Amino acid sequence: RIVAELEQALDASPDLPGALPVDAPPAHDDTAPAPDPQAAPGTSALLSGLHVAITAGPTREAIDPVRYLSNHSSGRMGFALAEAAVALGARVTLISGPVSLATPVGVERIDVISALDMLAAAERVAPHCDWFIGCAAVADYRLARISDHKLKKQSDHGELTLNLIENPDIIATVAARRSPPWTLGFAAETRELAQYAGDKLRRKGLDMIAANDVTAPGVGFGAEDNALTLYHRSDADPEQLASHVLPTRHKRALAEALLRYAHDRYRARQPR
Amino acid sequence: RIVAELEQALDASPDLPGALPVDAPPAHDDTAPAPDPQAAPGTSALLSGLHVAITAGPTREAIDPVRYLSNHSSGRMGFALAEAAVALGARVTLISGPVSLATPVGVERIDVISALDMLAAAERVAPHCDWFIGCAAVADYRLARISDHKLKKQSDHGELTLNLIENPDIIATVAARRSPPWTLGFAAETRELAQYAGDKLRRKGLDMIAANDVTAPGVGFGAEDNALTLYHRSDADPEQLASHVLPTRHKRALAEALLRYAHDRYRARQPR
Repeated sequence: RIVAELEQALDASPDLPGALPVDAPPAHDDTAPAPDPQAAPGTSALLSGLHVAITAGPTREAIDPVRYLSNHSSGRMGFALAEAAVALGARVTLISGPVSLATPVGVERIDVISALDMLAAAERVAPHCDWFIGCAAVADYRLARISDHKLKKQSDHGELTLNLIENPDIIATVAARRSPPWTLGFAAETRELAQYAGDKLRRKGLDMIAANDVTAPGVGFGAEDNALTLYHRSDADPEQLASHVLPTRHKRALAEALLRYAHDRYRARQPR
Repeated sequence: RIVAELEQALDASPDLPGALPVDAPPAHDDTAPAPDPQAAPGTSALLSGLHVAITAGPTREAIDPVRYLSNHSSGRMGFALAEAAVALGARVTLISGPVSLATPVGVERIDVISALDMLAAAERVAPHCDWFIGCAAVADYRLARISDHKLKKQSDHGELTLNLIENPDIIATVAARRSPPWTLGFAAETRELAQYAGDKLRRKGLDMIAANDVTAPGVGFGAEDNALTLYHRSDADPEQLASHVLPTRHKRALAEALLRYAHDRYRARQPR
């Protein structure tokens, strides 16, 4: 479906700026020439008229009334995207898991705790937005059964088994809608970035994926800075991945560069 | 052992203020007369000369490089105790799990992540402190094996089992030392407060335990206010529990009332 739409978009507008991204092998690509998104004209109103939904932060999956499963997402990247999108003229709805960050000015914020909460919020927003950016580190699994009472230590045997079941995939659910918004996913990986990110792009039916290696020093979870490698289907051959590297910088500056590149891709996809 | 020491303390000093706590059945007790710790003399230097170690906050137990198990402890109660203890003249070492709270002025702080980290810090501090207050919500369990890489979704079956093993009990380990500090534990319970708290007191060999019902509205994890019921061995019959209720108030005020009551108990125990 995505491939068909991409081809349609290319047929309709073969000379859009978005038709010129790097067609590179699915790997880090620091050298290939690329359009500089910072140099794009009409900066402050680039996303004017667009409604951008962004998920951010971790989700928490309750084990019992006091314990939970979570992850190290600080929410900073998603909040930086929300702030940058507003600055670029978009209407922004931010669906946030539990984080300790202030809401950027001009952003509509919906607070959620669990992945199921976040899915419900995403499904309410998805029909009305133009872009859906899944930046939250959604827990892949939740407890098969949440205990009503605090689980007690069993003194006679020092082991406990937690039975988890898979959470729904929020951005894949959004991308599978009949008329989906343009979708950008994130992949926080600890190895084989290109392979996992490419798999995720195809399996979830996304338009673009932004991958970072959370084990790289000074970037990722909790850090002020981040670096991303963007993957999307190649314009020349939709079966191939194209990649574009956004090198390390403050998450706010990185967010703006990402949104500018995303806008090129969005225009390339949209037949006008 | 503790019972023997208590009896010894009672024999040596039958008329200390600490020998007069409420001897009540092991249940909430709002009515029995009790010495008012707020009225104690020598307020600001009450704990002068004492080194008080306090654990605070949750611990995080890694599942893989990005995921963890944790709990809803904010660290507020432990930090309030640290601040109040310094104000009462104590030297304070605060061993804190991951929280977003500023270090109270005059407090020595040791930051830790996991229960094993916290145990190591506690074992370094325990030989040198007079009181050990275990206010942290230490994870009872950790992963049997921490994955080096982010666990991947297994698309072919939507279930995952986490195998957990019991963490060491930090305050029980401290209380089991040959010359233990005076120990105060906390119990965050969702039901049968007196029974679980009494069991914990005996099983861990503690001098006192402070219990709160985390399901009560407006108190406990994350809240500004808290209420506690204190349990310790009855002076009249060490096989019985005595209880003392500290009603709902701001955690900082509650911390001071708790330390004053603890000081009475500490003096009652110490043969002079």
